[in-house]
Amino acid sequence: MGRKAKQIDTIRIAVDAMGGDYAPHEVVRGAVEAARERDIEVVLVGQQETVQKELSQCNLAGAKVGICQAEETVGSDEDPVRAIRQKQNSSITVGINLVKVGQASAFVSGGSTGAVAAAALLMLGRKKGISRPALGVVFDSPSGPVLLLDVGANADCKPKYLLQFAQMGSIYMSKIHSIASPRIGLLSNGEEETKGNKLARATHQLLAKSGLNFTGNVEGQELPKGSADVVVTDGFTGNVVIKLSEGLGQVFAELSKQAVDNNPHFGEAEKRILNYTALGGALLLGVKGNVIITHGKSDAGAIKQAVRLAAQMVEQRVAEAIGT
Amino acid sequence: MGRKAKQIDTIRIAVDAMGGDYAPHEVVRGAVEAARERDIEVVLVGQQETVQKELSQCNLAGAKVGICQAEETVGSDEDPVRAIRQKQNSSITVGINLVKVGQASAFVSGGSTGAVAAAALLMLGRKKGISRPALGVVFDSPSGPVLLLDVGANADCKPKYLLQFAQMGSIYMSKIHSIASPRIGLLSNGEEETKGNKLARATHQLLAKSGLNFTGNVEGQELPKGSADVVVTDGFTGNVVIKLSEGLGQVFAELSKQAVDNNPHFGEAEKRILNYTALGGALLLGVKGNVIITHGKSDAGAIKQAVRLAAQMVEQRVAEAIGT
Repeated sequence: MGRKAKQIDTIRIAVDAMGGDYAPHEVVRGAVEAARERDIEVVLVGQQETVQKELSQCNLAGAKVGICQAEETVGSDEDPVRAIRQKQNSSITVGINLVKVGQASAFVSGGSTGAVAAAALLMLGRKKGISRPALGVVFDSPSGPVLLLDVGANADCKPKYLLQFAQMGSIYMSKIHSIASPRIGLLSNGEEETKGNKLARATHQLLAKSGLNFTGNVEGQELPKGSADVVVTDGFTGNVVIKLSEGLGQVFAELSKQAVDNNPHFGEAEKRILNYTALGGALLLGVKGNVIITHGKSDAGAIKQAVRLAAQMVEQRVAEAIGT
Repeated sequence: MGRKAKQIDTIRIAVDAMGGDYAPHEVVRGAVEAARERDIEVVLVGQQETVQKELSQCNLAGAKVGICQAEETVGSDEDPVRAIRQKQNSSITVGINLVKVGQASAFVSGGSTGAVAAAALLMLGRKKGISRPALGVVFDSPSGPVLLLDVGANADCKPKYLLQFAQMGSIYMSKIHSIASPRIGLLSNGEEETKGNKLARATHQLLAKSGLNFTGNVEGQELPKGSADVVVTDGFTGNVVIKLSEGLGQVFAELSKQAVDNNPHFGEAEKRILNYTALGGALLLGVKGNVIITHGKSDAGAIKQAVRLAAQMVEQRVAEAIGT
């Protein structure tokens, strides 16, 4: 690939070895697999002995893997900002700091979303021109990948924030998914520009004159079908959307389990869609660095994917391209 | 049933024969079936000749069915308020008027949701003590029926409105689903009372001291599982929720179709859940009358269910019990 030729140094990704429901076991395994298959160096951030013990069970042949000691961990029930301020030596703060001082090019964590976002905001800071960094999630639709943002960083938004989400999302989808001019949609309760709450109606006007490839409002039923490449909304609605999708997927999956188990026609693509919100991780866009927050239930395969995505974001200079 | 003993007069339900994608054929058939099976009189509102033609193909034995002439129809692409004001002789305005003047006890329509809601608001008026009538949808969860409101009548809400939605929902679920003390949930982006946008956080405080059986915030993934009997939210978020559920159901159903078709283990309950938003209809709560807006894609079976639900709402005096 032309891309690879341009890349001279090995890309170093910091991975929170202590974050997620299946940490450190699955996280370490996934990170090592990513490091073995591509020219990626992984720095596992966490309690040295624990991480070392997991590493000793992995096949490290050809893998560049290091450990960075971090004594503390942040629980998912802790207040994010307080935890980040008080636990200066947690795997999250240490990992984000590696990005800040340039010893890693990206940070991948399955820890508390709020805590990772808070650490990134407080320690890395916002990109210039971005009022509010946003959390984005990419899901598979029958028409291709769709980036939805914000999914939880900003419960209350202004139209200007949603415009910036659209700008960031457009950059991300063009760089990572090679879409020349990503179609931007605005989540709303009706197709017409007059539909929506005050926020959506005002955002519609901003997007219409933004120069982005704005294709109009997207209603809930269209969202999973992929009628736009990027869909913007406030973090309250976006959070309800991804969690509802996950919950409905679980309900449907439970009901379909027997059918899935017994039916050879029910293939991998279907299983993937039933789990689609669990794929990849959430991207924190708009901070000075590449940060990926994986789903808490990520297994080694999901961690490996996230590390590879982080490397791609570094190669494609996503964080650099956002803002001014 | 004791209920029936109390009911002396036949309940008369007005049905919009022209509303919905499969009107008048499926609507007339469904309404007639409801009238045949229970002690319900149905008044079909629409173009006399068209309705008469459909009726002539139905088995009317034992059914009390009348026709009320309404020359015009309201299209789903028309501006609701303008259409209602201009078309004084549409099936929607004539049907709502039957309720207003006491010639029918409820109105069932599969027409434009906005137009039916506008007609009800303008012609019947709000119940005293209700700032904003709300649209509610009942869906099946593994734990029982759940009423979600508002699903689209009020895109921008105040905390007070959501409190009233909870009060109305509690009355509905206790009267129609015989739940003694319905559990009230508030849709939010986190369980803790500190989570949410400004609206949700303020509403949480109101609900906590409301005297209702408020069980706290409900996150998106919990909503389809039925952790509360009534879930309140603003009409923007609620509309996205039901449309997204419908869209995901379609995507899943499409993928599962082969499995469903080929697998005897995939039973009726599963099929029902895959279609769950299509069940019943939306209830307009808070106006002076019982109004049900059925899904546009309702077939005769769905219309029959809606007419029977309307009769139950009349028997249980739902509209009377709401407000002061």
